[in-house]
Amino acid sequence: MQTPWEYRYAHRTQKMGSSVIRELLKLTEQPDIISFAGGLPAPEVFPLKEFQDACNAVLQNDGPMALQYGATEGYRPLREMIARHTGRYSVQVCAENVLITSGSQQALDFIGRVFINRGDHIVVESPTYLGALQAWNAYGAQYISVRADEHGMVVDELEAALRVGPKFIYTLPNFQNPSGTTLPLERRLKMIELADKYGVPIIEDDPYGQLRYEGEHIPSLVMLDSQYRNDNNGTYSGNVIYLSTFSKLLAPGLRLAWVIAPPEVIRRLVMTKQAADLHTSSFNQYVAYEVAKGGFLDEHVKLIRSTYKERRDVMLEVMDEMFPSEMRWTHPEGGMFLWGIMPEGVDAAEVLKTALERKVAFVPGGSFHPNGGGENTMRINFSYSAPNTIREGITRLGLTLKEVLARNGHKVL
Amino acid sequence: MQTPWEYRYAHRTQKMGSSVIRELLKLTEQPDIISFAGGLPAPEVFPLKEFQDACNAVLQNDGPMALQYGATEGYRPLREMIARHTGRYSVQVCAENVLITSGSQQALDFIGRVFINRGDHIVVESPTYLGALQAWNAYGAQYISVRADEHGMVVDELEAALRVGPKFIYTLPNFQNPSGTTLPLERRLKMIELADKYGVPIIEDDPYGQLRYEGEHIPSLVMLDSQYRNDNNGTYSGNVIYLSTFSKLLAPGLRLAWVIAPPEVIRRLVMTKQAADLHTSSFNQYVAYEVAKGGFLDEHVKLIRSTYKERRDVMLEVMDEMFPSEMRWTHPEGGMFLWGIMPEGVDAAEVLKTALERKVAFVPGGSFHPNGGGENTMRINFSYSAPNTIREGITRLGLTLKEVLARNGHKVL
Repeated sequence: MQTPWEYRYAHRTQKMGSSVIRELLKLTEQPDIISFAGGLPAPEVFPLKEFQDACNAVLQNDGPMALQYGATEGYRPLREMIARHTGRYSVQVCAENVLITSGSQQALDFIGRVFINRGDHIVVESPTYLGALQAWNAYGAQYISVRADEHGMVVDELEAALRVGPKFIYTLPNFQNPSGTTLPLERRLKMIELADKYGVPIIEDDPYGQLRYEGEHIPSLVMLDSQYRNDNNGTYSGNVIYLSTFSKLLAPGLRLAWVIAPPEVIRRLVMTKQAADLHTSSFNQYVAYEVAKGGFLDEHVKLIRSTYKERRDVMLEVMDEMFPSEMRWTHPEGGMFLWGIMPEGVDAAEVLKTALERKVAFVPGGSFHPNGGGENTMRINFSYSAPNTIREGITRLGLTLKEVLARNGHKVL
Repeated sequence: MQTPWEYRYAHRTQKMGSSVIRELLKLTEQPDIISFAGGLPAPEVFPLKEFQDACNAVLQNDGPMALQYGATEGYRPLREMIARHTGRYSVQVCAENVLITSGSQQALDFIGRVFINRGDHIVVESPTYLGALQAWNAYGAQYISVRADEHGMVVDELEAALRVGPKFIYTLPNFQNPSGTTLPLERRLKMIELADKYGVPIIEDDPYGQLRYEGEHIPSLVMLDSQYRNDNNGTYSGNVIYLSTFSKLLAPGLRLAWVIAPPEVIRRLVMTKQAADLHTSSFNQYVAYEVAKGGFLDEHVKLIRSTYKERRDVMLEVMDEMFPSEMRWTHPEGGMFLWGIMPEGVDAAEVLKTALERKVAFVPGGSFHPNGGGENTMRINFSYSAPNTIREGITRLGLTLKEVLARNGHKVL
């Protein structure tokens, strides 16, 4: 007889559906579609030559170690390098503050596994990163949405959320995914203060922090928390768990990211990782260390910044020209995404259907809102497509928007 | 104020302790200890030259794709290659039967996540693989231990366990970790029949299947299940989920393994993987495909077999000579481990303490028994150390055993 698989699945996976991101990523694979839906880095900026030199050096000098099982925490020289790098532009940390993960998605999953009991409340800005919601839904999280405006989370509304007794606050302060907004210094300071007052930890997700194209760098929450506590002796032991990644600085295909957290939280995450996948690829850690150890990334990040800045500028310029005046959108100071807002009542899913007929794609914003809303919003990626493709795609999207707005009874100017 | 982290952890991690494997792996890092404790492949057999050529070819021909985000299921040519490879020596499958994971440990974790509700029963042979217990403890599994003898699980005792209503049966039929035993064909056929009778799926964990040093290959459970059902049209849709890995055939530092399962189970595992780490390193999948595509692995496996066979033979020879006559041990036909059994009442943890004074290490067998027992057993790895090191280490271990047995009142011959 056939195995009745569907009755054998655990509760946590019974309600698992195919995800919006997943279905949309399939669209991006159709070669004739100009897709602003994904969140891919531009492959033109991958440093192929440096990777080739690094692979050869690693295999020649450390081959047997790089291909062998490794420590769950990560390759120690890489952890030490990340600690030094973090100390240069943010908080002072040591290797015991650093865990290497297989991409930031894995860090989000482990945080869910370590902290979330079914029914626990998590404070998020709305919209927020869909991958975090996907990771934490599996652990039965509930979300308290705090409103976001063009400067990110409206921190004046955070205290009410904290009085519910949430497990932690999740925020992306720099060039947020999906909205492209950046949290100003005053809001950061206020968030640190409120989190401390209520004893609620902060998860700071910062994949794009170094990809700033204009304006001044704003200190990270983990840095501000350390200053607020004034008890850092080279090891961070505060209230923030900070995530960043090589996916945007080097290449996502390596699946290399890192967590900065108090050593006791790192130890707990290490035990989780041991049961989940033993350790992250030794070879990739050796190669990333080899590529980055001479300070190469500083130079490389300049190239990424100038490439993405040009793409953002072209996109904003064509939007100004082609988008109907009823549309609003964010002006991101960095990162990879901007956020479009249509008049209330217009459905981005309907717009996407029409857009696909014109061979252009984006992500409807509804699914980034864990408690509903945002059906009139859209996430638009500017890092992946070349400038001329952006011109053509945004032109098509402008025509689509005019068509759908007119169909919805708007007088399109 | 300081964050009271320990009160914020989820139930599932509150009782997490530092693991025995983890503590023991630390011992293996002390350079003056001869360690038979780990489960490491011999680094001498890593094909460094082939890796170097493969990295160069991948970066030259497919660099931008190999460094970019990839499909959650895995790199399609690699999945197709694994399907062909499986069809050559086992069951007929297609790419839709194959999921790439970041090591088999991740496959075990995902199986736990997809299937296990807190309190669910899992049937295991005792002793069983510790990594599976670690993965599934996090999901609240309970274990029904079926006794194992020198031929693996005593399948005559399986039916009583199946009548409890377990979620699945977990078994390592070839050169089992930790015991080195191999399940004979009659027991395999009986297991398939019983599993079908009670509608209970089988998880077949087969990391070492191709590392056989003597005797005839025995068909895998997934193959026998397919024959039993007689409904295979090129896609497998039976009752077995099969796991294997590149860690033992190529190199564990790549973190590359695979699952063979009915397409609907693969789809469920893919959704789980998407939330857990998006996908396994694209670069490593391209490199493994490049190394293996020309049939290289067939030749390479011969080298691994002859290397490990020599080490096993040396170990068995020195054991015969040096171990006290009260000791029994398995004679594994393949794989990486053998299993030592001391007289009842002798504690392997005590032996380990004395052994460490003599600078030799192994894993006490107790922790491989989920429901207790086996305190007088030990797992001994023969794949990692060179033959002369094995001679010296087993000599030291023999002296240790004689000393501890004498101390425990045994007349040592």
